[in-house]
Amino acid sequence: MSLDQPLDPSLRDTLAQAVKEGFDDQIALTQEFVRRPSQRGEEHALQDFIFAELRGRGYQMERFAMDPEALANHPGAGKWSPQHSEAPIVVGIHRPREEAGRSLILQGHVDVVPTGPAHMWTDPPYGAVIRDGKMYGRGAGDMKSGLVCAISALDALRRAGWQPAATVYLQSVVEEESTGDGALMAHIRGYKAEAALVPEPTGETLVRANLGVIWFRVEFEGIPRHVSEMGEGANAIDAAIRTIAALRELEMAWNDRRGEHPLFGEMAKPINLNVGRIEGGEWASSVPATAAVDFRISLLPNWDVKDCAAEIEAHLKAFVSGDPFLSNNPPRLIWNGFMSDGYEQPEGTEAEAVLARAHEAAMGRPLEAKATPAYIDTRIYALFDQIPSLCYGPKNALSHGFDEYVEIDSLERVTLSIALFIAEWCGLEPVDPA
Amino acid sequence: MSLDQPLDPSLRDTLAQAVKEGFDDQIALTQEFVRRPSQRGEEHALQDFIFAELRGRGYQMERFAMDPEALANHPGAGKWSPQHSEAPIVVGIHRPREEAGRSLILQGHVDVVPTGPAHMWTDPPYGAVIRDGKMYGRGAGDMKSGLVCAISALDALRRAGWQPAATVYLQSVVEEESTGDGALMAHIRGYKAEAALVPEPTGETLVRANLGVIWFRVEFEGIPRHVSEMGEGANAIDAAIRTIAALRELEMAWNDRRGEHPLFGEMAKPINLNVGRIEGGEWASSVPATAAVDFRISLLPNWDVKDCAAEIEAHLKAFVSGDPFLSNNPPRLIWNGFMSDGYEQPEGTEAEAVLARAHEAAMGRPLEAKATPAYIDTRIYALFDQIPSLCYGPKNALSHGFDEYVEIDSLERVTLSIALFIAEWCGLEPVDPA
Repeated sequence: MSLDQPLDPSLRDTLAQAVKEGFDDQIALTQEFVRRPSQRGEEHALQDFIFAELRGRGYQMERFAMDPEALANHPGAGKWSPQHSEAPIVVGIHRPREEAGRSLILQGHVDVVPTGPAHMWTDPPYGAVIRDGKMYGRGAGDMKSGLVCAISALDALRRAGWQPAATVYLQSVVEEESTGDGALMAHIRGYKAEAALVPEPTGETLVRANLGVIWFRVEFEGIPRHVSEMGEGANAIDAAIRTIAALRELEMAWNDRRGEHPLFGEMAKPINLNVGRIEGGEWASSVPATAAVDFRISLLPNWDVKDCAAEIEAHLKAFVSGDPFLSNNPPRLIWNGFMSDGYEQPEGTEAEAVLARAHEAAMGRPLEAKATPAYIDTRIYALFDQIPSLCYGPKNALSHGFDEYVEIDSLERVTLSIALFIAEWCGLEPVDPA
Repeated sequence: MSLDQPLDPSLRDTLAQAVKEGFDDQIALTQEFVRRPSQRGEEHALQDFIFAELRGRGYQMERFAMDPEALANHPGAGKWSPQHSEAPIVVGIHRPREEAGRSLILQGHVDVVPTGPAHMWTDPPYGAVIRDGKMYGRGAGDMKSGLVCAISALDALRRAGWQPAATVYLQSVVEEESTGDGALMAHIRGYKAEAALVPEPTGETLVRANLGVIWFRVEFEGIPRHVSEMGEGANAIDAAIRTIAALRELEMAWNDRRGEHPLFGEMAKPINLNVGRIEGGEWASSVPATAAVDFRISLLPNWDVKDCAAEIEAHLKAFVSGDPFLSNNPPRLIWNGFMSDGYEQPEGTEAEAVLARAHEAAMGRPLEAKATPAYIDTRIYALFDQIPSLCYGPKNALSHGFDEYVEIDSLERVTLSIALFIAEWCGLEPVDPA
């Protein structure tokens, strides 16, 4: 089958059948993924498992480490911190017999965010329990199941006797939840293609645009005393609380400018400043000497992340200079993660048209696109390779929350959709040339 | 020498000479104390060192553990928590040949509060460095040096050929900085005397009254989500910050009632609510699910600690019921340390008169008394034994802070003062009966 031919209409049903035949295995594989804890820095075992799974399928494999120096020289890199993962990036490579079609990167991240207290989950966070058509677990939605959809789409093609007629890179990355350095490392390593698809849980829609994200930490040091000598406000925790309030003003100001991007201007509050973590003090009866707050803030796709970081710094400085305690005990601002621009996936690309046809064939309804106020690794390919970079995946809920889940039915539909996308974008050649 | 005789006027100079002769050893011993870290739960090595030191001086020794059950049944006990120290209480017992005088408890605590970051100290926190007439270190002031003053006062008497003509208990306790359970355990164990002296660093004054203290912890749990779905205020750290503000209102209301005690009514703000410790969240990009804040608040000596605790609980409950997020996710209030009434040392006791004479003889100026807005273990003896309970000790600064120190000169004066107090209160008998 070459690109000049439209997809054989019977291919849809053939592939639907092939996805269905493999679906029990696909769900079992998804559970294997979810059951391997893979918080930041813990992804080693899962990445090795994926390496073995892909090699078992006959892909040529590469596995490589982060290159902190190369990352530091790249404008899209997150800021290195002691928490940065040292887990490898895993790439499975399919090369066709004849490079007839368009090449493709299929990418997913395996890192997950912390679970929070296990008692706040109905089931164990890494249990991958299936109930009422949903698989529950940290990473079940975001985004282990999506990565398995991509693997399973290729499995389904092969089950039907086909393989892509172009190079396909199956990239399993880390650090998506903290810096984006995993995907960036694959890019720096030199993996290039004519389109990228990242099956994040998008609710079966295409992401039209997403926000940039900045992580920063503010560290406070004060002069502790016995609480009986405590002066008003002269303590690090109180200083941190005042600073949080001051940064909320910046958040409000940025949201007031949301109209600068048409897709986000319609949202009530697209920009969120999240106070994700706080710690301070040591002893109930001592005035706290230290405090630290970890922040995450987002920015519109048409803003420059460096300008935004400068604005944060200036806003903080102005507040500090007017605060009696802080001006004498200036806090330390540390960029410790994401330093990422947003991106927009322009309408009208051929890749999107192919995905739209695949989606409609798989789902029986047109593909919708939406802007999402989150970070997604597709920005790497959109910004730095300038290729169509499609974020499209299954229906989930409660990402980063308790009882995170993905809808099982959706996994089957999305797998078929991806298989059909690969078929048309890459073209197909028979697995067995005979 | 019996109680019927006034102190021999020459005794002052004899004892001053004896204190001076032992002073190098006293300072070296104080350094040995300071150099043994003894934060809560870490006091084992220092208590064993003190046990050996006192036994070496010929005291009869007892060493005993906390009895959680007995403590739980006592109204003055702090609330048990997993952080409660398991270090022993050490008592050195002097028994006279003839029980002619008045018995005495000399007590100090060896537990110290956390040091904070070592880089914020000029010298290592446990270095016991001496410079410009001051010894620096965590616990140098509060209150290892005071305990050594008491030991050294008895050493000086002995050097001059005398020993107390009454039973003296030298009590080295723990848990003074968190529950007061160390001193209370000695009381429950049955150690009783006709007066108690606790050489806390009071700046060579007598404590006339001190405040009660309550420790409590408030734990928050919320529903975390991906920050892109974050609703207003629906996160545990924001909830903690709002709750801190609500409890500051209670602090203000209590301070408005400070006139209910004459000694504290003159202070601008005797009641302090200290936000000593906070922790919350796990991940910059997740809405925090949990937060916890450790509070310390004080109360006037004529207030009842149980009423105050009930008032805190009611105030918190009222705030929570009016907060949309918290009313659906009510925080947990935990009493996790001090639950202590304050006390007042009434004027006009014979013990105070004896101390005043000793002080004036040692220092050449009259004894002053003051109220202090802190917790002190003397409350155990004042409240539960109803005996004169004297808190009196050296000049220090920066208790609980960086570069905490005690003034070396003051240690010599206070040691003499305590020796003279013992001489008159207990009476003296020759060490060598020959």
